[in-house]
Amino acid sequence: MKTLNHHELGLFTDLYELTMLQAYYDQDMHENAVFTLFVRELPATRNYLLACGLDTLLEYLENFSFNADDIDYLRSLDKFSDSFLDWLHNFRFTGQVRAMPEGTPCFGHEPLLEVSAPLPQAQVIETLVMNQMQLQTVLASKASRVANAAEGRSVLDFGPRRMHGIDAAVKGARAYYIAGINATSNVLAGKLYNVPVAGTMAHSYIQAHDDEQKAFDNFIKSYPQTVLLVDTFDTLSGVQKVIQLAERLGDKFAVQGIRLDSGDLAELAHKARQQLNKAGLQKMQIMVSGGLDESAIEDLVKSGAPVDGFGVGTDMGVSQDSPALDIAYKLCYYAGKGRLKLSSGKPILPGAKQVFRVSDNEGYCGDTIARADEKLPGRPLLQEVMRDGRRLASHTQDLEDIRNYSQAQVQQLPARFRRLQKQDTPYPVAVSDKLSTYQHQVSEAVKKGGYDE
Amino acid sequence: MKTLNHHELGLFTDLYELTMLQAYYDQDMHENAVFTLFVRELPATRNYLLACGLDTLLEYLENFSFNADDIDYLRSLDKFSDSFLDWLHNFRFTGQVRAMPEGTPCFGHEPLLEVSAPLPQAQVIETLVMNQMQLQTVLASKASRVANAAEGRSVLDFGPRRMHGIDAAVKGARAYYIAGINATSNVLAGKLYNVPVAGTMAHSYIQAHDDEQKAFDNFIKSYPQTVLLVDTFDTLSGVQKVIQLAERLGDKFAVQGIRLDSGDLAELAHKARQQLNKAGLQKMQIMVSGGLDESAIEDLVKSGAPVDGFGVGTDMGVSQDSPALDIAYKLCYYAGKGRLKLSSGKPILPGAKQVFRVSDNEGYCGDTIARADEKLPGRPLLQEVMRDGRRLASHTQDLEDIRNYSQAQVQQLPARFRRLQKQDTPYPVAVSDKLSTYQHQVSEAVKKGGYDE
Repeated sequence: MKTLNHHELGLFTDLYELTMLQAYYDQDMHENAVFTLFVRELPATRNYLLACGLDTLLEYLENFSFNADDIDYLRSLDKFSDSFLDWLHNFRFTGQVRAMPEGTPCFGHEPLLEVSAPLPQAQVIETLVMNQMQLQTVLASKASRVANAAEGRSVLDFGPRRMHGIDAAVKGARAYYIAGINATSNVLAGKLYNVPVAGTMAHSYIQAHDDEQKAFDNFIKSYPQTVLLVDTFDTLSGVQKVIQLAERLGDKFAVQGIRLDSGDLAELAHKARQQLNKAGLQKMQIMVSGGLDESAIEDLVKSGAPVDGFGVGTDMGVSQDSPALDIAYKLCYYAGKGRLKLSSGKPILPGAKQVFRVSDNEGYCGDTIARADEKLPGRPLLQEVMRDGRRLASHTQDLEDIRNYSQAQVQQLPARFRRLQKQDTPYPVAVSDKLSTYQHQVSEAVKKGGYDE
Repeated sequence: MKTLNHHELGLFTDLYELTMLQAYYDQDMHENAVFTLFVRELPATRNYLLACGLDTLLEYLENFSFNADDIDYLRSLDKFSDSFLDWLHNFRFTGQVRAMPEGTPCFGHEPLLEVSAPLPQAQVIETLVMNQMQLQTVLASKASRVANAAEGRSVLDFGPRRMHGIDAAVKGARAYYIAGINATSNVLAGKLYNVPVAGTMAHSYIQAHDDEQKAFDNFIKSYPQTVLLVDTFDTLSGVQKVIQLAERLGDKFAVQGIRLDSGDLAELAHKARQQLNKAGLQKMQIMVSGGLDESAIEDLVKSGAPVDGFGVGTDMGVSQDSPALDIAYKLCYYAGKGRLKLSSGKPILPGAKQVFRVSDNEGYCGDTIARADEKLPGRPLLQEVMRDGRRLASHTQDLEDIRNYSQAQVQQLPARFRRLQKQDTPYPVAVSDKLSTYQHQVSEAVKKGGYDE
């Protein structure tokens, strides 16, 4: 039996983290380090990202450790000394984390999060930090576009079956909700994170009955106020059967909506709306699903299709147009010195940093990435959320609060960044003079092989 | 604390599965059903898929259940009757699973797996079956292309940091190994699935030292036979430092390779090879990484770049060109009758099925999807792997055996399907006359609202 205890995730790391730790251990390199997490450039189809995943990451960091089985496995690799493995068995993360609050819109090169801890501690969590922060940031950023396209209509997450594994589906439902999706079909996410859950029936329910009318009759015995799926055999015949049901039941008819899952959704929604209205069922909602992405939703909304809500699955579930970010977690400070590398195309801003976001009457107008000790105009985005390896009480946040915060933040962006089309002129992100100077100094020092500041 | 016990995954389901179960329960619909898992059409960039994920799925099915907390959560939704929740608390999966062995190449419309069980049991596992089978099938299929492009050179999985969550990274490493990748950086996957692990150092290790030479010196004290990362500041200077180290250490020098992670990899590999050879280090291997996909690997191999191995991360990690499949799990039989739906563009082949694969002297030459009780020429691909909710002992397989089987199967495909380019003429997949006739009969019966066979 393969078990995975999410509280003992020490082994969820790349092997090279542990071989580096062995070498740090052998050389007694335990001084304080700062690592910075950032996305290099925004994907071709994103005007902004939503930073997401912090809360679940901090929970993991509080519990990050190696159990006896883990140590036995590592010993079996014949790559680690016994004294190092003893040290690792007692390993705990005792560092500091400063981060943007979850749901904050962010941009290329801005630190989403910085870790300050003894070098081995800040090093070994790299894989976990990147994996968890990228997952939820990718999915929240995609969902924000879907929510924008729906212009206030309800959007349901139908993704779990085609998302990448259980962890992605569960944490994704949380990220979607923060980004403005209204509910998820994912029951486990509902239990674990209090995300509202939704769903009524699939085609298999209809198919299991010998006729569609009988299926509808039976289902409303259990769920009178349901949404009926009408496209299993022929969409408009399905709508007629719902109308016949309404006529038959009269005042007892309580069905709230129908769902269309195939065919030309705009055309079928129009025809269904006409039929329903003609039958006096003006309040019956029309939900649509089936291969939807934010562009298809925008087209339906802009064309005036009478659609009350959307079920969105696969495309949002894997963030199909942009399933990964150029996200990096880089050493920028160690043993009192700024650190960077000079590899082509992959610059690092050295030292601990802060991001200042400036507003005017119309909302946010630009960010500046600065050294952590600078005081610049605007709101500093990175906040201390963990100290000595424990979450700060002030950081504990309710999911609804995170969602409300995020929605408000997105509304503060200039409107053009909420459009689906990539904007030619990106949101302005500057580097402060002090940080630029420091980057130049560290870069020169590295080139000379010395580190005098 | 949010815990996730992988042995009690009942709640990893879409809410509509449970509302359907309530309705089945209310109507006493417990007769036997068959659901079939298949991919409708292959993605635009795939000539074949590798079916993968069965072993981990069967483990979950053996343990699929709802604990007291789950039932409490469901009760709180106010959507389920107490007697139904009592029934659900005692729920176990007791059905049969027939499936293609893991690592089998497969094609559009072919059943990868069929579940035969009382309707509610076969229904409620839908989300889990699809999520787990798609995850590993997507990732194994992608990795098979990467392995083909590398033409026997070593390929390492560097994906965990940018894969979609922990489950994807861990099961992905397993799927990659089956598909021919040589090892993973993912230590947890190494422990859980016995996948070989690999890795040495990151840029942060170099950066944490005041100069690169010192970093190399220190690392080989812990790992004399390592692979040194040489591109942190300037790739060819890094190579020179490795050469100086070799000259300094003489016979004690045991470094096995260098890794290049940025810049023009082909050009740098050629120059590094020249420098190393000139210094008498002909045996030193050159590994490359950094934004690689199967096309970049193919280009490096075909251009004759002196590369001994590849580290592949993000692109394979999310299967960037095709992160999801049009995979479906559909009711095809219930209560003695074939079932399908008529929704446009989404046909279902009714009844339990089998796939026969025919070989000639040159390997596989075509498949036929047939009714389960047919006996046609060729090897039947679906095997019974679970009965009465327990895995059959005959199915328990070692990971190495699965990998060897899969590698051999891929080699039996006509060579053109192993090319990266999509082939105009797909692998031939036919539907047997008997199954066609049955599909027509069931379709006509459904149109008439009756089911006489």
